[in-house]
Amino acid sequence: MQWYFVAALLTILTSSQGILTTLSQSNGGYKYDYATVPFLAEVFKLLVSSVLLWKECRASSSPRMTVEWKSIRLFPIPSVIYLIHNNVQFATLTYVDTSTYQIMGNMKIVTTAILFRMFLKKKLSNLQWIAIILLAVGTTTSQVKGCGEVICDSLFSAPIQGYMLGILSACLSALAGVYTEFLMKKNNDSLYWQNVQLYTFGAIFNMVKLLLDDFRGGFENGPWWQRLLNGYSITTWMVVLNLGTTGLLVSWLMKYADNIVKVYSTSMAMLLTMILSVYLFNFKPTVQLFLGIIICMVSLHMYFAPPSTLVDLPVTASVNDVSVDRTGS
Amino acid sequence: MQWYFVAALLTILTSSQGILTTLSQSNGGYKYDYATVPFLAEVFKLLVSSVLLWKECRASSSPRMTVEWKSIRLFPIPSVIYLIHNNVQFATLTYVDTSTYQIMGNMKIVTTAILFRMFLKKKLSNLQWIAIILLAVGTTTSQVKGCGEVICDSLFSAPIQGYMLGILSACLSALAGVYTEFLMKKNNDSLYWQNVQLYTFGAIFNMVKLLLDDFRGGFENGPWWQRLLNGYSITTWMVVLNLGTTGLLVSWLMKYADNIVKVYSTSMAMLLTMILSVYLFNFKPTVQLFLGIIICMVSLHMYFAPPSTLVDLPVTASVNDVSVDRTGS
Repeated sequence: MQWYFVAALLTILTSSQGILTTLSQSNGGYKYDYATVPFLAEVFKLLVSSVLLWKECRASSSPRMTVEWKSIRLFPIPSVIYLIHNNVQFATLTYVDTSTYQIMGNMKIVTTAILFRMFLKKKLSNLQWIAIILLAVGTTTSQVKGCGEVICDSLFSAPIQGYMLGILSACLSALAGVYTEFLMKKNNDSLYWQNVQLYTFGAIFNMVKLLLDDFRGGFENGPWWQRLLNGYSITTWMVVLNLGTTGLLVSWLMKYADNIVKVYSTSMAMLLTMILSVYLFNFKPTVQLFLGIIICMVSLHMYFAPPSTLVDLPVTASVNDVSVDRTGS
Repeated sequence: MQWYFVAALLTILTSSQGILTTLSQSNGGYKYDYATVPFLAEVFKLLVSSVLLWKECRASSSPRMTVEWKSIRLFPIPSVIYLIHNNVQFATLTYVDTSTYQIMGNMKIVTTAILFRMFLKKKLSNLQWIAIILLAVGTTTSQVKGCGEVICDSLFSAPIQGYMLGILSACLSALAGVYTEFLMKKNNDSLYWQNVQLYTFGAIFNMVKLLLDDFRGGFENGPWWQRLLNGYSITTWMVVLNLGTTGLLVSWLMKYADNIVKVYSTSMAMLLTMILSVYLFNFKPTVQLFLGIIICMVSLHMYFAPPSTLVDLPVTASVNDVSVDRTGS
């Protein structure tokens, strides 16, 4: 399977996630407990990966599986980082408004590239660095509030702690991604075996989170397993399956492509969601959305196009051109 | 003289032009007749060029001067194009509001590049085309009205004629620039001799315009030469000298650099004016101004940096990198 096919599928499904989540609401609220969705998605991913691993085991060649504790103990780490990240996110939102929070979220594009360079030792050309900065600028541009929108004065008027936490949040998000890529690529283990380990811990951590929420709420609504599927509609199940599938695609990309591909997929998904919202939810299209799309497309092309197609001059250049010395001699 | 030094000076002076023009107003209006400013600027440029040409004639080597009518008759053409352009501009503004007009003005960046390619046969790499699109996107981004601004609903709600005229305006502006570059580079004539021809016609055309305005107004305020300097302050003179000097710098760039360099200079000047306005006129800085500046800086670097510094990977790349095939095989 080609990585760009998986990346395109991830874009479409990530975009659907936003749309489906909105559609699953009734009267602007959730009838179901949203915290149960990621748990069920982890269970779904674990089931799918287990079945695929079992099929792989039954096939002729037995899959590569490292079963030493030394290796297995690394797999809960992404879950731990996400747990910390969620709490930092929560703390950030006590300082900044949601618009500022959303705009700050684009920093994770740049932090992912930096950690990718630092920890995975991947080299990027200057043009690729520029492309990554443009991607962050493009997604931010599309999110700039237009005139006529009600809530806007509060943008970037938060205390400094808010921005520090926003930066921390962007670093943690990047760290989780880069660490997962490291895990998936550190040996030639079967993807499904790696997934089984990853999602087992993921399911456990999500379960613990549900249990802690119950403790905090004093078991007012009973324990989580009794109300797990309360208020679930067909749309809610689609949200679960969609979230699970995007997770599986991300795992695949982490093993066979990289974090930058994932970052592009999810950024494009954000733009696609905004475009679809114009049609589905009658959102007013803005100039800044249009500009943001152009910038992100340019960035995509700059990052992935073969360099020679970018910098070579057309071959039929005439010899009597009066040209300017641009090498900055 | 290096072209980038002249370009930087042009940026600073073009930016001052906006600031000085604002400062020359009293109570939001002009005490003087603004139409006299371009006329006096043409006269100033003509005087400076004549003196420089005279000095060049007195120096050892006699300057190259083509004095055939076949050549001279080409020099009024830029003035004619500007005359048509001014009228199209005026017509456009009867259809679209000033915000839309300002944003459409950025199209001239792209039309200049297209005419530059078509008529001057200059080759641009794909990366340079991308850079030019980004420059137009960047200047547009910086101009997007923020939330809280009063007039905004009218943006891009004009009749189709408005947009057609806007495109025509962008083409005429580009044509004037590209044609001037052609004039300056078509032979090795002295720059000052070329300037003398250009500005003689420029002064004549501006004079005719003042006269026509008088006819239209029925000579209510007397003929233009009687009220030429009415209401002129020291700031108004600075506006004239500044406009004249920028004109001379543009001529120099047309001969020794090119239209794209000029387009970058004036775009950067627009951003500089906006930055200075934050300090001088207490303009509120916006997120979109900040984003626009990043985009334009990226564009500048992409266009002018030596291609090898952009696409080459750092030399110390390790050999055991797991890398993705991005050639789109």
